[in-house]
Amino acid sequence: MGPHPAVAAIRLAVRRVLHDVLTDHAPGRAPGQAPDAPSRAPLVLVACSGGADSMALASALAFEAPKLGVRAGGVTVDHGLQSGSDLRADEVVLRLTELGLTPAESVAVTVGREGGPEAAARDARYAALDATAERHGATAVLLGHTRDDQAETVLLGLARGSGTRSLSGMAAVSGGPGADRRYRRPFLHLDRQTARKACMVQSLPVWDDPHNADPAYTRSRLRHEGLPALEKALGKGVVEALARTAQLSRDDADALDAWAGRAEDSVRDAAGLLECAKLYALPPAVRRRILRRAAIGAGAPAGSLFARHIEEIDRLITGWRGQGAINLPGKVVAQRQGGRLVIRQG
Amino acid sequence: MGPHPAVAAIRLAVRRVLHDVLTDHAPGRAPGQAPDAPSRAPLVLVACSGGADSMALASALAFEAPKLGVRAGGVTVDHGLQSGSDLRADEVVLRLTELGLTPAESVAVTVGREGGPEAAARDARYAALDATAERHGATAVLLGHTRDDQAETVLLGLARGSGTRSLSGMAAVSGGPGADRRYRRPFLHLDRQTARKACMVQSLPVWDDPHNADPAYTRSRLRHEGLPALEKALGKGVVEALARTAQLSRDDADALDAWAGRAEDSVRDAAGLLECAKLYALPPAVRRRILRRAAIGAGAPAGSLFARHIEEIDRLITGWRGQGAINLPGKVVAQRQGGRLVIRQG
Repeated sequence: MGPHPAVAAIRLAVRRVLHDVLTDHAPGRAPGQAPDAPSRAPLVLVACSGGADSMALASALAFEAPKLGVRAGGVTVDHGLQSGSDLRADEVVLRLTELGLTPAESVAVTVGREGGPEAAARDARYAALDATAERHGATAVLLGHTRDDQAETVLLGLARGSGTRSLSGMAAVSGGPGADRRYRRPFLHLDRQTARKACMVQSLPVWDDPHNADPAYTRSRLRHEGLPALEKALGKGVVEALARTAQLSRDDADALDAWAGRAEDSVRDAAGLLECAKLYALPPAVRRRILRRAAIGAGAPAGSLFARHIEEIDRLITGWRGQGAINLPGKVVAQRQGGRLVIRQG
Repeated sequence: MGPHPAVAAIRLAVRRVLHDVLTDHAPGRAPGQAPDAPSRAPLVLVACSGGADSMALASALAFEAPKLGVRAGGVTVDHGLQSGSDLRADEVVLRLTELGLTPAESVAVTVGREGGPEAAARDARYAALDATAERHGATAVLLGHTRDDQAETVLLGLARGSGTRSLSGMAAVSGGPGADRRYRRPFLHLDRQTARKACMVQSLPVWDDPHNADPAYTRSRLRHEGLPALEKALGKGVVEALARTAQLSRDDADALDAWAGRAEDSVRDAAGLLECAKLYALPPAVRRRILRRAAIGAGAPAGSLFARHIEEIDRLITGWRGQGAINLPGKVVAQRQGGRLVIRQG
């Protein structure tokens, strides 16, 4: 008798990602084949909060890694935001050790305030994970985000109203400093319920972070009120549809960014200035991406540059009636001069 | 003292659209300038249900049209779905006449069943509006959709999970048979509350369609439960963000469709067959659009062709391992033969 379907599902998801990791990092070596002696087996870490998603992920990594000649380790981040979080972290390390993960360690971080509590915690967490991966020479770090997390991320992007890129959610593979394919999300197509079930049938104790149920957090409100109401109105397939939207939006945004990157050279004059007539001839979606890149290139912080800023620059091209210079975040100024668009720090 | 801000807002929105209509339909004549005698003044119709949005629109059209040398008329569609709908329609005609609209008439339609009750009613309504516009030689038909309707349409598209085009909502300008810019939506950037307020301060009686509050309809559930819950979770700007998403998604989808249209020729061999190697080299977003066009071109009905179908065809290109022919809706079959992709009705 094979494993419970939920356990089979989480293991398959991890196995596929480990294959990808081995293929990526050992070109010329067939996936699954043991690495040539005397090089050491690659190390894959799991980032584990002790919650159901990442505990399921840790258990699947512990099961699959040895079969593929991969070393499996785990790390938990102590954000220091709740009293007793250090003891919690120690407990998670104990669980990871019990699963056979080596190294298994906790890293304490100090969460700042920049960008709000959720963004600050995330920044601190990824910095710690990057540092831990570097320290151990890990080939990859697995993250336990599920399809439900993805759906929530798409809705958060939708609330920003800043277009296709912001609807593309989390990538199955993403980078850290110096390692552009470090992070892997094996569960991005699995639902949260499967991860929880897999923990249950494997008798893995899981910890429910009270933050996840705290209505002070946007994501928590979305999870417990927003998404259920949307499912009630639109039907049960909403989470899946949102996850599919993420993938399609990511591909669309990538293609359009590539187009804008190529087109940018063709719309600059010999002095490197943007020619308004040539910009005008481009599709709005491509033109606006070039304008955004130019503003960022001139020093405008990407996070402060909103759709309405780009709209306003665009009107210098499409609705020219002699308007003056436009002030952008980061003291960047955009103006039209003699048929050229000049964007620079003022 | 000028008009109430809500009335000023609806009039400005209509004035802008009438300018666009005049510019579109009389090239060489400045907008606002009276048409050359002896040609008759252009006619613009408002489609009016008697609800607040379209009554506000009718009132603004009646006010603005004469100032621009435009004739203003109105039409209401009797869907025959509720008892007494014919009397309702007569009442709307009376209101339109009181506003000074000529012609003012009702058109009775028979609603079929195809595509569900909402789609069937919409199809019947637009067919009637097209016929009415043709019969009177109308230059444009104004529709009362607001920013709130747009937000709902984006969420309905999101629930389909079929990507950027389905997130692009309703267009500010769209076509009918033989008239590709017939329909105009002046209120797409105004909220429903403004339209309602404008009716109130002008003492215009409005009719609340019981269908709009009937939880049997997806859109009604979205309006009364889904969107409010989403606003509660994500904040008050959600409707605006959704409307902005619509515009950005439309531009992105247009640009990518244009790219796919151009690329399609370059990936066909001398016999007109799609070359797999050339398809492989394209960005996934462009390749999938070409595959979709090819499937529709071969006879697959667009409405039955889902993202998963296109995914499966795409794997003939990107994940080729000798798989067999793929059955698509409309008895269309896709298969790979000698490095070519053959899509045809089987």
